[in-house]
Amino acid sequence: MSVSQTCEASSSLQICRLMRPDDANIVGNVHGGIVLKMMEEAGCIIGTRHCNTQSGDRCLAALVRVEKTEFLTPIFIGEVAHVTAEITYTSKHSLEVQVKFMAENILTGAKKLANKAALWYVPCSLQNVEKIMEVPAIKYASAEQEEEGRKRYEAQKMERQETKARTEEVMPPPPNPEQHTVGFSQSSLIHLVGPTDCTLHNYVHGGVTMKLMDEVAGIVAARHCNTNIVTASVDAINFHRKIKKGSVVTVTGRLTFISNKSMEIEVLVDASSLVEAEKGKYRAVSAFFTFISLDKDNKPLPVPPLKINGEEEQRRFEEGKARYLQSKAKRLANQARQQ
Amino acid sequence: MSVSQTCEASSSLQICRLMRPDDANIVGNVHGGIVLKMMEEAGCIIGTRHCNTQSGDRCLAALVRVEKTEFLTPIFIGEVAHVTAEITYTSKHSLEVQVKFMAENILTGAKKLANKAALWYVPCSLQNVEKIMEVPAIKYASAEQEEEGRKRYEAQKMERQETKARTEEVMPPPPNPEQHTVGFSQSSLIHLVGPTDCTLHNYVHGGVTMKLMDEVAGIVAARHCNTNIVTASVDAINFHRKIKKGSVVTVTGRLTFISNKSMEIEVLVDASSLVEAEKGKYRAVSAFFTFISLDKDNKPLPVPPLKINGEEEQRRFEEGKARYLQSKAKRLANQARQQ
Amino acid sequence: MSVSQTCEASSSLQICRLMRPDDANIVGNVHGGIVLKMMEEAGCIIGTRHCNTQSGDRCLAALVRVEKTEFLTPIFIGEVAHVTAEITYTSKHSLEVQVKFMAENILTGAKKLANKAALWYVPCSLQNVEKIMEVPAIKYASAEQEEEGRKRYEAQKMERQETKARTEEVMPPPPNPEQHTVGFSQSSLIHLVGPTDCTLHNYVHGGVTMKLMDEVAGIVAARHCNTNIVTASVDAINFHRKIKKGSVVTVTGRLTFISNKSMEIEVLVDASSLVEAEKGKYRAVSAFFTFISLDKDNKPLPVPPLKINGEEEQRRFEEGKARYLQSKAKRLANQARQQ
Repeated sequence: MSVSQTCEASSSLQICRLMRPDDANIVGNVHGGIVLKMMEEAGCIIGTRHCNTQSGDRCLAALVRVEKTEFLTPIFIGEVAHVTAEITYTSKHSLEVQVKFMAENILTGAKKLANKAALWYVPCSLQNVEKIMEVPAIKYASAEQEEEGRKRYEAQKMERQETKARTEEVMPPPPNPEQHTVGFSQSSLIHLVGPTDCTLHNYVHGGVTMKLMDEVAGIVAARHCNTNIVTASVDAINFHRKIKKGSVVTVTGRLTFISNKSMEIEVLVDASSLVEAEKGKYRAVSAFFTFISLDKDNKPLPVPPLKINGEEEQRRFEEGKARYLQSKAKRLANQARQQ
Repeated sequence: MSVSQTCEASSSLQICRLMRPDDANIVGNVHGGIVLKMMEEAGCIIGTRHCNTQSGDRCLAALVRVEKTEFLTPIFIGEVAHVTAEITYTSKHSLEVQVKFMAENILTGAKKLANKAALWYVPCSLQNVEKIMEVPAIKYASAEQEEEGRKRYEAQKMERQETKARTEEVMPPPPNPEQHTVGFSQSSLIHLVGPTDCTLHNYVHGGVTMKLMDEVAGIVAARHCNTNIVTASVDAINFHRKIKKGSVVTVTGRLTFISNKSMEIEVLVDASSLVEAEKGKYRAVSAFFTFISLDKDNKPLPVPPLKINGEEEQRRFEEGKARYLQSKAKRLANQARQQ
Repeated sequence: MSVSQTCEASSSLQICRLMRPDDANIVGNVHGGIVLKMMEEAGCIIGTRHCNTQSGDRCLAALVRVEKTEFLTPIFIGEVAHVTAEITYTSKHSLEVQVKFMAENILTGAKKLANKAALWYVPCSLQNVEKIMEVPAIKYASAEQEEEGRKRYEAQKMERQETKARTEEVMPPPPNPEQHTVGFSQSSLIHLVGPTDCTLHNYVHGGVTMKLMDEVAGIVAARHCNTNIVTASVDAINFHRKIKKGSVVTVTGRLTFISNKSMEIEVLVDASSLVEAEKGKYRAVSAFFTFISLDKDNKPLPVPPLKINGEEEQRRFEEGKARYLQSKAKRLANQARQQ
């Protein structure tokens, strides 16, 4: 029987579990954050396993980037999630894991692809978390496959360096009582990092951070349109700095752009140590989440327009619009190519 | 004492479970919020069970008030918590449950009383949550016992009515970058109410709310003094309004008063429905938590003084000081009486 | 790629996840109850999936029995658990699922078999939980394999009927202050069943019940010997009655027998509705757990002898001794056969 064989193969892995009430909102839709968290767990396991197949320090795979990803179909309580992960590229110090999330209705037997994403990890030594280990090379089916991986590697490397500069920006605070403004729906949550959130070397799992980010973004979206909302997509997320056990994490979400039927929400994650005040707050992660609003038959609803106040909000709106148009053009190009 | 006998009798109950890593902070101290949550669960079970021993609508006991309570000793991961609850007074529409929290070190056999509190419940019909059912009377050991219960009942009733007025007050927002000011440590968290937070009729358990309150208060305290902090006591908490499943709860904590070795933190809980915008935010609960700062041997440390800005903060500081002095006087009087 | 293929095959399934701090005791040993709960989830998924491959009412597989199972090796935080389940026999109204629990150290690559067990399920209609559906037959590799399955089926059926009578027995209460008596270590916990504990038709997952049972048994064992204790084995467990959402579950454990290096603990699970007091308590499950005591190098320690009080305790001790000797004889016979 092939079950345990797939498990032996160090280059692929499958996680599965039942979706529970706590994974979903009141209407029964599983939160996007749960999907991201499970995908990251699969990536972390396969990445860590792969990087320890060599001699030298034992190490853990730490998430440094998730490529843009789309939520293709809603998932419900009682369905079984199957997450499969495969290592698809290795550079000297990083590896790419492609992860698929399938949802199976075990009552009808129906299966659907709910999400797929590419995650980048680097192996950090357990002795010294700042020491990045070398990644054993994988074998490629073809030279072409390797070349495509190398291109993806170069592209994400460049983008990670670009976004580094932006991370120092500070979050302006002003809540606004007028409905449909940015200030009205802006929301923050504080989370005290606990043992269950952490890896063996006491840093927060990337998946836990993404779950918190999705939670805040969902609250922002719901506050703006007062309907059932779901995560539609997430832009590339870069994990600039690690978050240590015992930190306080502040996750803030604010609307940046609204199209006819979607909302773009910027989510900023700031961390600070509870007991070492001198070190101060730092920006650990930031990303853009896109949400849509659904009616009772799970069909997209129009979204109320955003009331803009001031130049800063206007600038962010324009930037969001550019991202929206770019991603729309890409989608259309992909569709054309596939036909 | 006959644990399971008392368990048969519908007027007392015992809950126990192991303390786990997620129940505690990094140093291993169990959060005060976990203690309050377990005590409320015991009260809810015994109250609900008692109120359903009569004919009529089935009902659930909803928490309306917790009397001031003190944390007598720290509790650690690996200890077993024993929570015992007993119904000690019944009025026509409410009942008082006295709850004790013992911590047992199962390796040494040592047991210590960690907390005791009095909780007040009212039975709400499962058909119509606004309908308050009648409470079956309990039997008292003596007329004196009944009379004392009646006095406690009258006292809390009066206090609950007094605090009602204060609940509409709005939370001033200003975070302040200067250390040891009120604005510097002020913190808020947002929580989206999930199924696990709720009772059978889809309202948040009082214990869940208290756990969130303790969490925010702990973050405020730690931000102020950057040390290991623990809950020392909680002033009486009144639950003014119920919080429904699907609500967004915003819990805000701010320092009000600081003595040599303790911090008083006011915690305000505001709730709003995610999908029914028209209803708006409402103040559901508010309370004062007192925290102390501990060194590595669990001994109290001096707390940095609070820098006051403006009249409002000064007024709240004076009020806090009055509560502090009053509670100190009470404690001394009790000690004198016991000698 | 073979990953998704194994997932397609309806007769086998794999669940895996990282072991977290909350899954383990202070020393880092994963609780036996977590192992049992994950194994039951795998069995429930594969059983439910299989029973819905036919037309007729949609149904869920409800656990009715777990065969005696042994914990072969300790599991630690940070290891990855792989649970594989396979349907190995089907009768008209029930199915047998054999489940293996492997623990993988992803840092060293080491894998070990931690547990295997056989679970029996019956498919209950989602429309009417009392209606037992028919189970589609599986194909056997050989007639011999089918015949062996049929024998296991008959044996467990007979045993289930025998134990039915015993379930009405009531738990005698007297805790005893003298150390090493039955009353001294006897423990109870009460749990209010929440949504996350339940299946789609609002009955408690068998795995959730087993986790609670293991928790109580662990407390009893630790109280008796004041050392690090782990689950060594669990006797066959019969699930006599289902437990509904909103129930209060009382789980009681008491020592029955002690050999040189092991403790047998009887665990009884009683359930009652929170709001329908008149319906009364009923015995839902009962089982015998065997624990051992470990020193710092994970080697078994001698266990303090049990002080017996009265005829009832003596009778239970003798029965436990008979089970112990029988299971020891079986183990020796198995070892002889394998040589």
